[in-house]
Amino acid sequence: MKLSELSAALADKGFANSIEGDADLDIVSANTLDDARAGEISFLSNPKYKAKLRLTQASAVIVADQESVPEGLTVMRTENPYAAITAAIIIIHGYRVHPQWGVDEQCRIAASAEIGENASIGPFVTIGEHVRIGANAIVYPGCYIGDRVCIGDDVILYPNVTIYDDSRLGDRVALHAGTVVGQDGLGYAPVNGSWLKIPQVGRVVIDDDVEMGANCAIDRATLGETYIGKDTKFSDLVVIGHGTKLGERCMMVAQVGIAGSVEVGNDVTLAGQVGVAGHIRIGDNVLVHAKSAVWSSIEDDANYLGFPATRAFQYRKQAALVQKLPELRRRLRKLEAEVENLRKDIADRQSD
Amino acid sequence: MKLSELSAALADKGFANSIEGDADLDIVSANTLDDARAGEISFLSNPKYKAKLRLTQASAVIVADQESVPEGLTVMRTENPYAAITAAIIIIHGYRVHPQWGVDEQCRIAASAEIGENASIGPFVTIGEHVRIGANAIVYPGCYIGDRVCIGDDVILYPNVTIYDDSRLGDRVALHAGTVVGQDGLGYAPVNGSWLKIPQVGRVVIDDDVEMGANCAIDRATLGETYIGKDTKFSDLVVIGHGTKLGERCMMVAQVGIAGSVEVGNDVTLAGQVGVAGHIRIGDNVLVHAKSAVWSSIEDDANYLGFPATRAFQYRKQAALVQKLPELRRRLRKLEAEVENLRKDIADRQSD
Amino acid sequence: MKLSELSAALADKGFANSIEGDADLDIVSANTLDDARAGEISFLSNPKYKAKLRLTQASAVIVADQESVPEGLTVMRTENPYAAITAAIIIIHGYRVHPQWGVDEQCRIAASAEIGENASIGPFVTIGEHVRIGANAIVYPGCYIGDRVCIGDDVILYPNVTIYDDSRLGDRVALHAGTVVGQDGLGYAPVNGSWLKIPQVGRVVIDDDVEMGANCAIDRATLGETYIGKDTKFSDLVVIGHGTKLGERCMMVAQVGIAGSVEVGNDVTLAGQVGVAGHIRIGDNVLVHAKSAVWSSIEDDANYLGFPATRAFQYRKQAALVQKLPELRRRLRKLEAEVENLRKDIADRQSD
Repeated sequence: MKLSELSAALADKGFANSIEGDADLDIVSANTLDDARAGEISFLSNPKYKAKLRLTQASAVIVADQESVPEGLTVMRTENPYAAITAAIIIIHGYRVHPQWGVDEQCRIAASAEIGENASIGPFVTIGEHVRIGANAIVYPGCYIGDRVCIGDDVILYPNVTIYDDSRLGDRVALHAGTVVGQDGLGYAPVNGSWLKIPQVGRVVIDDDVEMGANCAIDRATLGETYIGKDTKFSDLVVIGHGTKLGERCMMVAQVGIAGSVEVGNDVTLAGQVGVAGHIRIGDNVLVHAKSAVWSSIEDDANYLGFPATRAFQYRKQAALVQKLPELRRRLRKLEAEVENLRKDIADRQSD
Repeated sequence: MKLSELSAALADKGFANSIEGDADLDIVSANTLDDARAGEISFLSNPKYKAKLRLTQASAVIVADQESVPEGLTVMRTENPYAAITAAIIIIHGYRVHPQWGVDEQCRIAASAEIGENASIGPFVTIGEHVRIGANAIVYPGCYIGDRVCIGDDVILYPNVTIYDDSRLGDRVALHAGTVVGQDGLGYAPVNGSWLKIPQVGRVVIDDDVEMGANCAIDRATLGETYIGKDTKFSDLVVIGHGTKLGERCMMVAQVGIAGSVEVGNDVTLAGQVGVAGHIRIGDNVLVHAKSAVWSSIEDDANYLGFPATRAFQYRKQAALVQKLPELRRRLRKLEAEVENLRKDIADRQSD
Repeated sequence: MKLSELSAALADKGFANSIEGDADLDIVSANTLDDARAGEISFLSNPKYKAKLRLTQASAVIVADQESVPEGLTVMRTENPYAAITAAIIIIHGYRVHPQWGVDEQCRIAASAEIGENASIGPFVTIGEHVRIGANAIVYPGCYIGDRVCIGDDVILYPNVTIYDDSRLGDRVALHAGTVVGQDGLGYAPVNGSWLKIPQVGRVVIDDDVEMGANCAIDRATLGETYIGKDTKFSDLVVIGHGTKLGERCMMVAQVGIAGSVEVGNDVTLAGQVGVAGHIRIGDNVLVHAKSAVWSSIEDDANYLGFPATRAFQYRKQAALVQKLPELRRRLRKLEAEVENLRKDIADRQSD
């Protein structure tokens, strides 16, 4: 594809752009400024990487309209380089092409299961009784789908995913390798000096367009549902406790853990390693910064940080003062000495 | 089952109760106040959810003896609603019914392995040489059981569980999907500028009645044993380091990580995301709150919190003072100004 | 093997040593002081365990040259007992002997894949199109190796490992059970009120002699490479974000999480549960203590700790002052009262 053709394709998708330099260049793939070679297009979005423009071997770079660039570098100018490179990647590369297994002869599908048309079910997959799977499913090798699970259309289950009995997945759900949905949560009652297991009779419901990273774990509800809202995305090793309900378009970064019976609103981002205690509510449009510990409910439109999580600007102020504690202690000591001197001074004058 | 029958069954199990309302209702399942529909019984245990009594569609609700309830709601009164609903779930639903695979023809069992009677071994399971498995084992598809592993009676291994060579599991152990037992821990010695791997020749021993959540990882010992005591329960993504020994009836909440060579007593609860440093001892009956960092040993009967973990009441006091740091600084500044004024005042009068 | 033979074998490897006691003892294995029985050799390296010398049932113990020992205990004296026991374990036990499957008839290997000589590929393994695997590979049951993956010589993949398409592994790489390499990272662009998935067209490259624990997850790069340097070692449940590059001989302890586009130098140790924010640089020879939150770049040769991570000695000073906050507040109150008294005192005298 020539750079001019890519430019036209991007313009078609609404990304107005202009080329400065050689529009006839052949572009074979997209890459980072660091790793790009001749024939590749790259981009500059984060200004902190600007110096890399001088070093990159990319044939062309997508930059912001006003960006100054080294002489001789072919660039495509556009308003939002990050959005444009995203569109360019889709144009040049498209999405992953999955293996076509049909329904592999070495998978094990219960007679009562219904599999939609055009499925690709790999070897060593087990599908239980009364399972229903929609059209165009991609089920990679080693997946286990328990009895009575119900799955929508266009779902992708990467290798070694486990879906426990009675779970429900909407359309276009994608679960990466090793993720587990519907295992029993930590439900025990102390009885006579040992733990009595409470049967976990609820289920997990994952709505349309949810994607989860690798090795996540979503507990089934003790009663009722654990629910993941539409278009919510998880990174890897995220854990969701029993009975917790997440809203739409949330973003759970890697190693986030949410305890049981939590309600999370829409458009919530929990950054990496955030932990959330049980039985609380996180409002809509909340951002919690990485590694924070959320112990109590958070109102809508909030920005939290810390251990325990507090409004981010407050936490930053506190953290700055903690760093000044040595100075504050010095000032306190100095004052103590001064007050002592004043007292002596006054006492001396009284005794005069 | 009629509500009156459930009432009688609960009374039989020692949960004295009384019904107010329609004892002839048919109860088909248990559910949360939020999700319950007609025909379902729910419960109120945490007073913070009391308002839900007015909104629930449950046909009946288990409440505490003294609880006030909306008019017209059928309730079952009992001393401890949480214990009673637990018993009710067991009566109504029982525990998960597992698939019956017998010994599936598509699993791979070494000739020298001994499998007890009444086993259900799913497809795509691999069982190594000299393995011994007790009676009534349930081994889901995709599990791997290494050479010389020894497993007791009534064990459940959910899909894609891996048990490394030489591990031992007691009776009634249940491991959820993706959990790994007995992998090598981080054992290397620095030799001539690179890492020399130390053979990990110890093993993992998991005692009776242990249950672990999904995607946990229990390192084998370098030498000797990593040991998990009887009736100890794990949530998901828990990591236990090499040579660590846990007592009985502990509760490890999700994403807890314990380093190597730690000794943990009986009846210890580590809440979500707690981390414990290596080579220390945690006493009996200890509670560590979520996300705390345990850097040194903890005495028996303690309640710890924080980064680093401190006695919880002390940590809470410190945290409250940190939040007051801006105020403390203001007071310090004010004092500094006042002392300065006093000094001037005295100096002025001296010069009078 | 007699103790005298072990002594000679260690001396051959450069560990000068001398025996005090019965050199003719038979030694069948190595073990900890706690767990050792007759016929086993143990070691004392950490002085905190010295009291165990009196209680151990080991037949012989490796101790430091100057160590005082209970009468009657057979010991082997050497300069560095930890290095010597490591060598002794290798001499006595060697490394794990893997099952020999040849190329199992129940694995699924694409016709276009090339497998090197002397491979042991277990049952229920799937190997995709155009995969290349070097000599002496050990691939345990349940592994999935995606299309175009390229793997060096002497690699070990433990059960249920997933390698996504286009990943590259060097020689002598070992990945423990459940680890996932090359899944898509969290790459979405907000478009018209929903998330547009950015195709993740980069890959993962894992260099020679890397070993990873169980249930880790290494994101493929959006563009370019996620890279793990030679001889770097991971414990369990470690997550590496897309485009991140790690140097050589690093040590990532359990549950470490590194976000995307991070550069980590050589010889870096991140202790358990450390989190690292995206788009920063960690220098060479850095140590970050357990559970710390790294929010900004770290220079070479540094020792960091805390939330947020600070130089460790500074953080310890701050933490000590936080613990003294109640005392500092008392002193502030006392000063306030004294200053108030002084003022009254002066005012009284002025009105005299």
